[in-house]
Amino acid sequence: MSKKLEYFFDYVSPFSYLADSQVPGLVQRTGAELIYRPFFLGGVMQASGNSPPATVPAKGAYMGVDIARWLDRYGLEFKFNPNFPVMTVKPMRAALVALEQGVFPQFHQAMFKAMWREEKNIGDAEVLAEVLSSAGLDAPAILGRIGDDDVKEHLKANTAEAVERGAFGAPTFYVEGEMFFGNDRLDFLEAKLAS
Amino acid sequence: MSKKLEYFFDYVSPFSYLADSQVPGLVQRTGAELIYRPFFLGGVMQASGNSPPATVPAKGAYMGVDIARWLDRYGLEFKFNPNFPVMTVKPMRAALVALEQGVFPQFHQAMFKAMWREEKNIGDAEVLAEVLSSAGLDAPAILGRIGDDDVKEHLKANTAEAVERGAFGAPTFYVEGEMFFGNDRLDFLEAKLAS
Repeated sequence: MSKKLEYFFDYVSPFSYLADSQVPGLVQRTGAELIYRPFFLGGVMQASGNSPPATVPAKGAYMGVDIARWLDRYGLEFKFNPNFPVMTVKPMRAALVALEQGVFPQFHQAMFKAMWREEKNIGDAEVLAEVLSSAGLDAPAILGRIGDDDVKEHLKANTAEAVERGAFGAPTFYVEGEMFFGNDRLDFLEAKLAS
Repeated sequence: MSKKLEYFFDYVSPFSYLADSQVPGLVQRTGAELIYRPFFLGGVMQASGNSPPATVPAKGAYMGVDIARWLDRYGLEFKFNPNFPVMTVKPMRAALVALEQGVFPQFHQAMFKAMWREEKNIGDAEVLAEVLSSAGLDAPAILGRIGDDDVKEHLKANTAEAVERGAFGAPTFYVEGEMFFGNDRLDFLEAKLAS
């Protein structure tokens, strides 16, 4: 039986970038039905009362070491984006539009690559347009929709729903009502999907 | 080559309890030279500016779910101690005395068991004495030392040293200058020890 896997993410989150590299394999091995749920991490942090790890200096320093270990394990490229924390309301709205327009896979790859391998400020509308065009996407078609009320409301609704369901960070996954938080719980997530 | 493994822990920490159950196997597999470094988690939190996860309600709720998954994986018993957060200055000083008096293994087991399987308030001097006596330990010999200045200073020094080296929680491990934080990084820790 194929299980539904809801995947809440934000391009601003380095742990979403890490986890995202493993999601295809996990889906292939478990036959899960993957549902991408873009949300706005800033809104989740605010609503849950959580703070980014780096607000505690020792946590921030260790986070760099920890990310490096995961990159090594996964064999991934990464550059810490000097624009961090990028304001990702526009990219996350654009992700919803890309899903609607059937171009999500290319969009999704381009965003994580721009954010975590190419040091781009994807929160800037001009940079965002360039990133999409370079990836062969129709930037005006996507970005022309992100100011529309229904798209704005959709991102707000996804964010509020995740908070309602207990999220306090990214990435956050749900399977059959169970929540799995973080790149470092993919093993538990996979066990659940395989059960 | 046997590597030194420094292990900073506090009995108040449920993730130290989880990790502690895996440490003997890890040491056996890697031949590490294990050095127990009792510290005072409350002091680490204060000095690093970190806060317990449960100060964010959604994190606290998820922590219960997460702990349950680890308990299931490890096959461990656990009861959430209603006295949490227990004030562990006395038990952690007593751990240093137990190391000095050569009775640490029995002491260590008795403390984690009392705290995380038997709902005891090990911060209370009388309860602490009972727990030690029940475990066949010489409670007066151990507890008679915990008010001595050198023992007090030793716990402060361990705590300050961990903070100095980047700790912000428990358990925290060090191998060859590298820090590993948390029950959920034992796989990285083991890879380092085995390398």
